[in-house]
Formats: sequence, C-alpha cells, structure tokens
Amino acid sequence: MNAGTAGGRTQPVHRSAATGTSLDQHIDRYAQRTTGMRASAIRALFAVANRPEVVSLAGGMPFLRSLPLEALAVEASELVVQDGLTALQYGSGQGVPELREQICQVMALEGITAHPDDVMVTVGSQMALDLTTRIFIDPGDVILAEAPSYVGALGTFQSYQAQVVHVAMDDDGLIPEALVAAIDSCRASGRRIKLLYTIPNFHNPAGVTLSDARRARIAEICRVADIAILEDNPYGLLGFDDRLRRAIRADDADNVIYLGSFSKTFAPGLRVGWVLAPHAVREKLVLANESATLNPPVFNQMLISRYLSGFDWRGQIKAYQQTYAERRDTMLAALAEMMPEGTTWTTPDGGFYVWVTLPPGFDTAAMLPRAVTARVAYVPGTAFYADGLGTRQLRLSYCFPTPERITEGVRRLAGVIASELDVMQTFGTSAARPISGPSSPSPDTA
Amino acid sequence: MNAGTAGGRTQPVHRSAATGTSLDQHIDRYAQRTTGMRASAIRALFAVANRPEVVSLAGGMPFLRSLPLEALAVEASELVVQDGLTALQYGSGQGVPELREQICQVMALEGITAHPDDVMVTVGSQMALDLTTRIFIDPGDVILAEAPSYVGALGTFQSYQAQVVHVAMDDDGLIPEALVAAIDSCRASGRRIKLLYTIPNFHNPAGVTLSDARRARIAEICRVADIAILEDNPYGLLGFDDRLRRAIRADDADNVIYLGSFSKTFAPGLRVGWVLAPHAVREKLVLANESATLNPPVFNQMLISRYLSGFDWRGQIKAYQQTYAERRDTMLAALAEMMPEGTTWTTPDGGFYVWVTLPPGFDTAAMLPRAVTARVAYVPGTAFYADGLGTRQLRLSYCFPTPERITEGVRRLAGVIASELDVMQTFGTSAARPISGPSSPSPDTA
Repeated sequence: MNAGTAGGRTQPVHRSAATGTSLDQHIDRYAQRTTGMRASAIRALFAVANRPEVVSLAGGMPFLRSLPLEALAVEASELVVQDGLTALQYGSGQGVPELREQICQVMALEGITAHPDDVMVTVGSQMALDLTTRIFIDPGDVILAEAPSYVGALGTFQSYQAQVVHVAMDDDGLIPEALVAAIDSCRASGRRIKLLYTIPNFHNPAGVTLSDARRARIAEICRVADIAILEDNPYGLLGFDDRLRRAIRADDADNVIYLGSFSKTFAPGLRVGWVLAPHAVREKLVLANESATLNPPVFNQMLISRYLSGFDWRGQIKAYQQTYAERRDTMLAALAEMMPEGTTWTTPDGGFYVWVTLPPGFDTAAMLPRAVTARVAYVPGTAFYADGLGTRQLRLSYCFPTPERITEGVRRLAGVIASELDVMQTFGTSAARPISGPSSPSPDTA
Repeated sequence: MNAGTAGGRTQPVHRSAATGTSLDQHIDRYAQRTTGMRASAIRALFAVANRPEVVSLAGGMPFLRSLPLEALAVEASELVVQDGLTALQYGSGQGVPELREQICQVMALEGITAHPDDVMVTVGSQMALDLTTRIFIDPGDVILAEAPSYVGALGTFQSYQAQVVHVAMDDDGLIPEALVAAIDSCRASGRRIKLLYTIPNFHNPAGVTLSDARRARIAEICRVADIAILEDNPYGLLGFDDRLRRAIRADDADNVIYLGSFSKTFAPGLRVGWVLAPHAVREKLVLANESATLNPPVFNQMLISRYLSGFDWRGQIKAYQQTYAERRDTMLAALAEMMPEGTTWTTPDGGFYVWVTLPPGFDTAAMLPRAVTARVAYVPGTAFYADGLGTRQLRLSYCFPTPERITEGVRRLAGVIASELDVMQTFGTSAARPISGPSSPSPDTA
C-alpha cells in the first residue's frame, strides 16, 4: 500500500488502533438518501447458502440449461463479425430501434398495442424501475405497493426516499377495496401519492395473480385518483396454462407505465429490460437513461434482437413453462406432504415463487441461520415489506433447483420447522434473536 | 390504438384539439429533479449531423476498425459455449472477480496499487459517475469542476440537483490557486462542497493535461479542505508519447474516487467501466449499483476478461494511440492553415479533443445550424459549462473521421467562420439567435 504518504508529506491515516480497520473518513459526506441503504445481515448467510451442499430455495435465478447455447454462440460470433462496428460502438439512449419493434411484438402477446417510439430499453427492468422512480419521486412521496412486494423495488423506492404504503392482497391479487382505503388514508393525512407499483402476474414473492375483473377496477380507481400505475411484468409469459393474462396497460395506455424484461423469458446475464410509457414520460425517461448510462449496451440489444428474429423464442418460453410447471408441482406436493399443520401457502399458476405462512409464533428471519445449518435456504418474509411485517412468512423459489433437490430442500425445511415447533412448545416462543431482512436487492433475493 | 376505451368505459383523452398531439397528463407528477432535465435544441441538429455527407467533428466515438473482430468473434462464441450458464445468469452486484483483478493490472499502468475488493464494475463509467453522485450529493451541494467540463458529468450532477462551481484551467490543467479561491468563495457563502470532479488526462473537452506538480498540490488542497476527489480517467492510456501520467489516486488512496472505462481503450458498446473507491465508499456504491441494475451484465464482463487475458490489449492501445496521434496532427495542421487570425486552440498530448476559442463576438451555438448546413458538425462550448459560459468556444474531436475527412471538415468550418466574420464586420455581431447547449449527455457529445 502506498496510501500512507504522498510526495513525502504525511497524510492523515484513518485507522482504528484497536482493530487495525479503516474508519470511514467520508462518513460526514454522504447524501441523506444513503441512510436507508445498508447491507443486510442476510447477505453473509447467502454466501454460505450458495455452497453446493445447501439447497437454495432462495434465489430467483432462471434455469438456463434449456437454452440453445451452441446456436446462440454462432449468433454471437456472427454479430461481432458482421455488425461488430455497430454492436461495439456507442448507441441510442432509447435503445436499438429494431429491438424496440420486436419488444412491441412480444408485448402484443399480452394484448398491448404500442409504438416502438414509446419503448425504451434499459439495463434490466431493474434500471427501468430506478429511472421511473427517479423521474417521479420526491423524498416523502408515497408509492402504493402490494403487501408483500418485490424486494428490489422496495430497495429502489427507499433509495429515492419514497414512502411505501402496502396494500393487502389475497389469492386474486391486490384487493381493490384495500387500495381505495389506502388512498383515502394517505390523502386524509396529507400525503402525496405518486404511483401504484404492482406485479399483476405470478407475483414476486406472493405467487398469486391479479384477476381479470380486478384489473379493470384497479385501473379505474387509479385513473380517478390521479395515480399512475407502474405495472411490473417480468413473469407474465411464464404461465402454466395457455390462458392469456391481459396486461393492465393493454386497456390503459395513458396512465400505465409498463416494465418488461428478457431476464426470465430468455436470460438475465445480458441485462436487457424495457419500459413502455406514455410519450411525454418516455421522453423524460430517455434523458434519465442517458444521464445514468449514456446508452444501454448495444451488443446485448443486437444479440437479443438476433435471438428474437432467428430462433423459436416462443418455443423457448414453452420449454421454460414446462420446466417450471413440473417444479412447481414438485414443490406443492412436497409442501402438502411435509409441512406441519397450520402452515399455508399460495398456489402459483406461473412464475417462480411460493409464499409460505407458518403458524403464529414463528420468526422466519431468526430461523434462517438454523435452516442454512440444515442445508436449506429461503428468503424471510420481512424482506418483502417496507414496514416490518412478514415475520412468519417466507418465500420459496422452485425455478432453479431440480425436482429432486426441491423435494430434499422442503424435507430439510420441514425438519427445521419441526425443531422450532418443539422449542416453541417447550419455551413458548422461538429462541433466537431476529435479523432484519435485506434492505437492498441482490440476485439472491430477486 | 385501443387506448381510448377500457372495458366499455370512456377514458379521459388528453389531446390538444388544435395540434392532435397528446398533452402530458403526468405533468404535475414529476419529481423536482426533472426540472433540470431537458432535451437540447442541439439534439435535432445532430440527427442531421449524423448523415454521411456531414463531417462530424462532434462525437466522441472511438475508431473501432483496428479491433481484431474475427478473433473477438471466436472469443464471444467460446464464452457462450463454455461458460454460457454463468455468463447469461445473474451475477455479483460488485462485478466479476476475475475482471476486477485484471482492472487492477490495468490501473497499475498509471501507478495505482489497489485491491480488487475496492473495485466495482459499472455500466460504463457514466454509471459510476451516476452512482457516486447518488451516494454523495444532496440537493444544493456543491461539486467543483473544471471550466469547461464533461457534458455527461454536468448532466448527471444536475439530475441530482448539485450546484456545479467551475474552476479555471490553463494549458497545464486545473489551476490550484483558482481551486483554493473557489473553495474559499463557496465556504464564505456557506455552501457545502462535496466533491472536486476532475479529468486530469487529455481533458474532455479542453484537450489539456494536468501537470505532475499540480497533481500533488491539488490532492493536498482537497485533503486539507476535506473535499473528496472524483478522478475521471477514460483517456489516460491514450497518450501520444510513452510518458507515464501518474493517477492522482496513485498517491492518495483515502481521498480519491477513481473512474475508469474500457470504452476508449477497447470498445464502448459493451458498456463496461469501473470505480475504485475507499472501502467504505465502495460498500455504499455496491448497494447503489444493486439498487440500480441488480448487477452489471455478466456476459460483457466475462467477454472483456477473456479479451484482457487472451489478447495483446496493450498492443491494441498502441494501435489506438497511433491512429489518434495521426489524426490529432492532421487536425492541428488544418487548424493552423485555415483558421482566421484571433482563433486559438489547445494542443492535446492524447485523447480525442481539441478545444477551440474563436475571436470575440462569435456565438458557436448560434453558428451550429449554419455549420451543419455547410456539412460540418462540432459541439458548442456552452454545452460544457453549467453557468452559460463557452459562447465563443467549440469542441472538435478527431477520433472518428479519417484524416482526409478531418481536413475537409476543418476546411468547411473555416468557411463558415469566415462567413460569420463577414456578417459580424457588416452588422457588428453574429446574426442568429443562440440555442442552448445539451443539458444531458448523449453519445454525440460524449
């Protein structure tokens, strides 16, 4: 280390004599928004959970083995040779025009009629979430979100100092009456509501889907209340039946900002997502996108464009659907067989997740270290709430492990729960101290 | 369009009867930070400027023809086949460990000793700029920056509502005495200074390089004044001689946040940059990176990692240096031959840009439409100031056009300037109304 001296002068050295670790000399310089940004105690656990002997039912990683890697390799190679001078150069802040046209074709599967000019490509739909929050949210503004909600969205909202107000769900998704009540309550206390954030299909983490009847009702409630809808739909094409789930955006082009992604229908490692927004909003989003990245990677956009035009991408989605449907079945069967009485869970029609509620008295965050010791990992429910709820909930994902591993993972989890029940019956409550949920997203909890 | 009705109900339709264009129903919902985000009048001009008949001396696009595309294609193909399940999957929010080790080797060329754990990969160094601003800047905080400064940094700073205070430069870069005076002035008026943003090597847009003696002095001034340095160094390895230009960070690990990029030494289309920061700052940056994108694209990082380990990347940088040195020579010769008396310009020792100052009375923003009509484009100087200065300056880039086109471009520009001089001598001033510079970055002005 040559940090101690510069040009022969002595620099201030900020080290604690007791521990030898650096103190943070920048501690007084950070922006206020960083106060809500902190690493979770769970992160360290997930480093352990990623060991091969642990069955991770925590992560939302797609199962990529069915991708046509050999053919994709040819495509990547041809892209560099034939179009390398474009693919490796700076590009448009809005995204590659041909890809934006293809994105409109993808969205048409969910009933959306859109013009490519109203689409902007982003570095994963996470970036679309970030930029949308950036252009709409002043500190203290309210975002309504389902209870529970996507941990990555909660982290982004927090980083822009939004106040998240949760709205109850049931097996048909967000409850319209609860939405109206939440709006009234916020307004009564003088708070400014900017957005309703919703994941209508195969909810992360709840696993439920918003019913058709409620979609129209919720769109109407938000129009009347003058609140824009942020419709986040990464899993919409991963239903386990052939039923069309019509996007909210399909019937409300003026008041809905729609987020899509290739991470689940193709692959996440290229980080290509998009946002479809009313024209004036899209214009602001492009300025924000340029300010954040200049432009999303051209190479990645052109590779996905080639994939969409040269491959049976609908067939690939079918393959994913079948894989995940089988794993969902395996997980539900294992839960039914092994979970103790008083435990409930949702029954997803698509997507990646089952949301489990343990009997009263459980603390899933406190239980996690013991689960990891028993070689199974999940995400504790508190991660998915901005307000500390979710103590006896947990999210299980069935997307990545094989069916055999899923069954084994649920078996281990059932063993941990049974031990906890023993302790609770002896001592009256769960023994360990709680740990807080992750406050910012990571792929482990995506 | 099916946007007008939903489920049989009539929606509010926000259209101006006179023009047929949509009004923005979201106009009252935007965050305060968006007030500074606006598209520049120059954008439309650049759409014209990108036509092949126009010689663009505006853009900062690297000249990629010397890249080994055939070999890169093999590398991309092998990456998908051999490591596709990793490269196409979610990854670390901090970046691929092997690439971070290689980045430390790259930075070692500029005298930096760093640990890979203090490096974070970003979507281009623009994203590093965005995230660093995010964690440090509250609205109203001051960022000191050279006068002129990088348009993309000014846009990002503005989007976080920072106040940019410019500090004068000369041919040896930022002037230490001017820095001290700016600090004193800000402090006297009670303003909070968070960062000094500086581009020490081959400055964009000024084309000058900070002298070695000044580097130590500026580092000391900032340490004493308790202001962190944000050292932005995309061009540092593109010097036209073999002289090492030692990074400010090389002698001050505690107070410097260093930004690097593969966009200029390799290619920008993969959008891979990085930030090296003191450990506590790096921890906050990773939280911010995850909140913004979950993780930078794994595929892109692994492809660059393969490039660095399998190719003569230092040889590629040499090739770039030679190309750009020849073009710099061509541009300087053409300027010397053709510019009218009273015009001055900088002499870059590396990088992409020459900064031209026209005689008093010129307005380069007002002149741009006439230049584009004469089939030559540049970036007006006002784009590079947060305070409206730069009226008679302009930035010329020699990185992308061939030497022949550079000479022809300067010839056309000289013709436009001569016509302006005629008008000025007749009417006493430049004739057209001014247009403001770009307020957010775009690749055209990067």
